[in-house]
Amino acid sequence: MNVIDFIDLLGTVAFAVSGALAAFSKRLDPFGVIIMAFVTAAGGGTLRDILIGVQPVSWMLNMNLVYTILICVVVTFIFRKWLLKLRKTLFLFDTIGIGLYTVVGLEMGLQAGLHPVICITLGCVTACFGGVIRDILVNEIPVIFRKNIYATACLAGGVVYFLMIKIGVLENFRFFIAGFTVILIRFFAVMFSWQLPSFYDTGEEDPTRF
Amino acid sequence: MNVIDFIDLLGTVAFAVSGALAAFSKRLDPFGVIIMAFVTAAGGGTLRDILIGVQPVSWMLNMNLVYTILICVVVTFIFRKWLLKLRKTLFLFDTIGIGLYTVVGLEMGLQAGLHPVICITLGCVTACFGGVIRDILVNEIPVIFRKNIYATACLAGGVVYFLMIKIGVLENFRFFIAGFTVILIRFFAVMFSWQLPSFYDTGEEDPTRF
Amino acid sequence: MNVIDFIDLLGTVAFAVSGALAAFSKRLDPFGVIIMAFVTAAGGGTLRDILIGVQPVSWMLNMNLVYTILICVVVTFIFRKWLLKLRKTLFLFDTIGIGLYTVVGLEMGLQAGLHPVICITLGCVTACFGGVIRDILVNEIPVIFRKNIYATACLAGGVVYFLMIKIGVLENFRFFIAGFTVILIRFFAVMFSWQLPSFYDTGEEDPTRF
Repeated sequence: MNVIDFIDLLGTVAFAVSGALAAFSKRLDPFGVIIMAFVTAAGGGTLRDILIGVQPVSWMLNMNLVYTILICVVVTFIFRKWLLKLRKTLFLFDTIGIGLYTVVGLEMGLQAGLHPVICITLGCVTACFGGVIRDILVNEIPVIFRKNIYATACLAGGVVYFLMIKIGVLENFRFFIAGFTVILIRFFAVMFSWQLPSFYDTGEEDPTRF
Repeated sequence: MNVIDFIDLLGTVAFAVSGALAAFSKRLDPFGVIIMAFVTAAGGGTLRDILIGVQPVSWMLNMNLVYTILICVVVTFIFRKWLLKLRKTLFLFDTIGIGLYTVVGLEMGLQAGLHPVICITLGCVTACFGGVIRDILVNEIPVIFRKNIYATACLAGGVVYFLMIKIGVLENFRFFIAGFTVILIRFFAVMFSWQLPSFYDTGEEDPTRF
Repeated sequence: MNVIDFIDLLGTVAFAVSGALAAFSKRLDPFGVIIMAFVTAAGGGTLRDILIGVQPVSWMLNMNLVYTILICVVVTFIFRKWLLKLRKTLFLFDTIGIGLYTVVGLEMGLQAGLHPVICITLGCVTACFGGVIRDILVNEIPVIFRKNIYATACLAGGVVYFLMIKIGVLENFRFFIAGFTVILIRFFAVMFSWQLPSFYDTGEEDPTRF
């Protein structure tokens, strides 16, 4: 297992837990919980694979990911009261997930020989669209429109990644520093209620949520 | 025409009628009705084809399916008052549809040489996601989250299919028994208001409909 | 750059402006505006490419389209107060967009050697589904169900295109006449409040907007 597969696996765990917690808080039935965990964890990567043309999509040939998601659902179920009580848990897992998946998406774009701007876009797609599809399924405004500095953090991580290529940082360091950049930006954005500068006159924008 | 093509055609008829009836009950205009019938009948198979990498997707190379859907819309239109009066008609066609499409999806996964768990997933996707996309288009909570024992019935049919491979049942029998399993489970689930065991304390889950 | 690439570029400009205006009117943050412009401009073509199997999808290999969308967002931002005041601007850009994209979609279907009915469908998908995905993302009833004579105009343009092949009109003329047909039908439909004949008894259909 190489470094990128390991990061992918960690991201899958983070998003599967976050998806299952979201489903528990919506009181879905057991099968609904599995679908939500699966869509949150595999949705972004599935869209990325389809856009590039990697088919059958990754999870279909990687049973480890499928079993990982199922195990995460069971473990999350057992500890759900404890996890849901900690109001920040869902945020924590989601933030780790977007950091890790941004790097995985970037790397897949590079492997396909695509332009840096497209690679960064694929990083954002991989990180954010699992949550977007999850939100669409349960009929909510998608996460990228509700939370300022969400996709923006992934974008920043992607830019940092390519800057590190310019200055010659080693590949495995690039992975970790870029992922960590995403996580830190998102973390501080929520901690200090950062948001992108508004260009509207009155103050009617949607407030940032968790 | 082989057995699986025939089952596919029957499933298309069932879902096209169910989609058109749903559109009539929403009072969509003629073009909206055609889009709804088409999405309901072809949506699940389209997603399955894209996930596996069968492109152009099946219906693009199979004009019979396209014409079948258009004829179903016209026939459903002519008999719509009679069909809508029978409150159970929509349920009946939808149930037959998921039974047939589960088998078609399974078979396509097997042909692509995928793992049994993935084949069963593809059966569920083929059967359920036409309805899911239809519901998303008209801004409703998707069918799989509203109705307990919906995707679960497809899952059970898939498991039965692979058990029959183990005990050596002939292919064509497997198709019919697995499809029939899905239909029976869904039918009894609605008849006797079955639902998956709840793991929440209070009773606030979404009630099953129908 | 050939004629079809030029039409594609013009359509991209029209839809990027229309998507950005829609995002401004929803008061999204800067990143949300870019996502909306991008989805509106590239969504229909992306779905078309995925259905046919053109992967990586077109915009991933065409940085001109990506930069065009970003420039449109900036220009629309600068002139947004002026553009939004003209209540018909959004409608105008959207109408030009569906006319141009219908032709692009038709042409891609022909290049892939698909049946005329499928080519016309691909024209409608290319023209309408960017708006549909945009509407789903912001949790609205998709445009094709809200506005009568929307997808229908694209369908008519497609039929006109194939009639012109029959009577031997030159390719570049076909492009412009078919695109112009779509724009004219949509324009007159809104001007004179055309809608498809209703087949319901009472008058509860969704009113056409604009």
